[in-house]
Amino acid sequence: MLDSGKGSKGLKGMFTHRHQVQFYETDLMGIVHHSNYLRFCEEARVAWAQERGLIDYQRPESAAHFAVLETHVRHLRPAIFGDVIEVELQVRREGVRIQFQYLLKRGSDRLAAVETVHVPLGKDLKPLRVPEAMKDVLEKEQWIETWLSSS
Amino acid sequence: MLDSGKGSKGLKGMFTHRHQVQFYETDLMGIVHHSNYLRFCEEARVAWAQERGLIDYQRPESAAHFAVLETHVRHLRPAIFGDVIEVELQVRREGVRIQFQYLLKRGSDRLAAVETVHVPLGKDLKPLRVPEAMKDVLEKEQWIETWLSSS
Amino acid sequence: MLDSGKGSKGLKGMFTHRHQVQFYETDLMGIVHHSNYLRFCEEARVAWAQERGLIDYQRPESAAHFAVLETHVRHLRPAIFGDVIEVELQVRREGVRIQFQYLLKRGSDRLAAVETVHVPLGKDLKPLRVPEAMKDVLEKEQWIETWLSSS
Amino acid sequence: MLDSGKGSKGLKGMFTHRHQVQFYETDLMGIVHHSNYLRFCEEARVAWAQERGLIDYQRPESAAHFAVLETHVRHLRPAIFGDVIEVELQVRREGVRIQFQYLLKRGSDRLAAVETVHVPLGKDLKPLRVPEAMKDVLEKEQWIETWLSSS
Repeated sequence: MLDSGKGSKGLKGMFTHRHQVQFYETDLMGIVHHSNYLRFCEEARVAWAQERGLIDYQRPESAAHFAVLETHVRHLRPAIFGDVIEVELQVRREGVRIQFQYLLKRGSDRLAAVETVHVPLGKDLKPLRVPEAMKDVLEKEQWIETWLSSS
Repeated sequence: MLDSGKGSKGLKGMFTHRHQVQFYETDLMGIVHHSNYLRFCEEARVAWAQERGLIDYQRPESAAHFAVLETHVRHLRPAIFGDVIEVELQVRREGVRIQFQYLLKRGSDRLAAVETVHVPLGKDLKPLRVPEAMKDVLEKEQWIETWLSSS
Repeated sequence: MLDSGKGSKGLKGMFTHRHQVQFYETDLMGIVHHSNYLRFCEEARVAWAQERGLIDYQRPESAAHFAVLETHVRHLRPAIFGDVIEVELQVRREGVRIQFQYLLKRGSDRLAAVETVHVPLGKDLKPLRVPEAMKDVLEKEQWIETWLSSS
Repeated sequence: MLDSGKGSKGLKGMFTHRHQVQFYETDLMGIVHHSNYLRFCEEARVAWAQERGLIDYQRPESAAHFAVLETHVRHLRPAIFGDVIEVELQVRREGVRIQFQYLLKRGSDRLAAVETVHVPLGKDLKPLRVPEAMKDVLEKEQWIETWLSSS
């Protein structure tokens, strides 16, 4: 998403990304295919990381600092063609793991709650320590409330 | 794309849609997978049709008025993660067929030229006559120059 | 997957589906994009349901009996272009919810453990009771071991 | 597709690849989204190249020898969930360009005719000469009839 990529702030100062549902994201049930929710969250995560200076589009391998370890999606309401989805995002660090949670909303309706867990990887796909620059950024992030309690 | 969906005009008054390349649209060559170009053009076509009042998100079957008969893509330069692609669009009618052409650009670089040809379909997937409202809209569209000459 | 769709049995009589990783399923890190794991599991689930007579391709809306409520993926090793992934599947019912677990393997390597939870939906996207035919099928399924403990 | 990847021969000795339409490949019109046809053709092309020893899964960059320059798809009939699509493939060389044509069929019904044009690329995404091994293979391929006449 374009202008949304600028990282507009929600009411509580939360990072928010917007995605309008495309025709090619629907399935024969007439709703958004469930696999796309992980893509919407990736868009939000990349927009956040780019705004915070943690991903550099000139060095795409910098995205490897958010290699996906785990994903968890709870669907509350279906989204349909043309919907404008707002993805609110929060993030915190737990040792070497970086935990994101996302609340996907259409107006005041909650569509889904998502959690993704990440570890930084090197070019060889081996885990790295969390870079200092990322630690600094993560310390300043707020964790408002837990949207999805996961094992 | 959100705000881009509002149909900003290019220099020559051309309908322009913007799409920022997402991580999930790349492949192992480090570039945008070629199948996604048809998706970017669909985004532009839907944004155009929605602006012109020809697609109604409340009635998704209205999108069937642009059933795809033919697509043709010529790739000029690869697009990569994070690129902001501008899709310029022009459209004209040839009898029952609706012809779109698209020029995909990154700044002044041309990335691809695309043509798609459509026919209106009914719910039963049978061809329909072009609706009068669509004819009226199409008569007002300008065809600037032919970007891709196709058989 | 074609012949795999016939539902070959694993060592323990477990339903197994095979998927060969396609070029278009990779991303710029050179590995399978994480959103595709949900698609591989859907392939396995549909192949299972089709074999058990619970999905009828002539009535695609029958697939709505497996509307997705929740997904949970734990990634263990990356998959790459050309890999043949074996998806082992088990399923059980908990009241109105249908729980699937999947183990994705490449040879003896475990790539991912996945859980998806489903409810039957009607055409209006409202939850239905579990159909009797499905209850009968589910009673005969074996649950071998829990691969992913989820909240 | 798995066993299909072995490259069964059609009536005329033509390379044939099979793909069963997945739920996630459909859109809200209840048919296969048009962008997926390019993916089915890529599957066929990779299966062919792998069988002919031109792509080595251990060296994914070998796939760059089939960088996509142009695609052209003509849709004849829609495909739906569960359909088994047979993709017949033929290929010839025209100087530095490699031209593939594909006929997508469901039983005796023709669903689409597709052409893709390729050039070998190096790691730096610059065009290369056609490798000798590829020339040798291409000389032995038969071009039966032209399914799609393109500019």
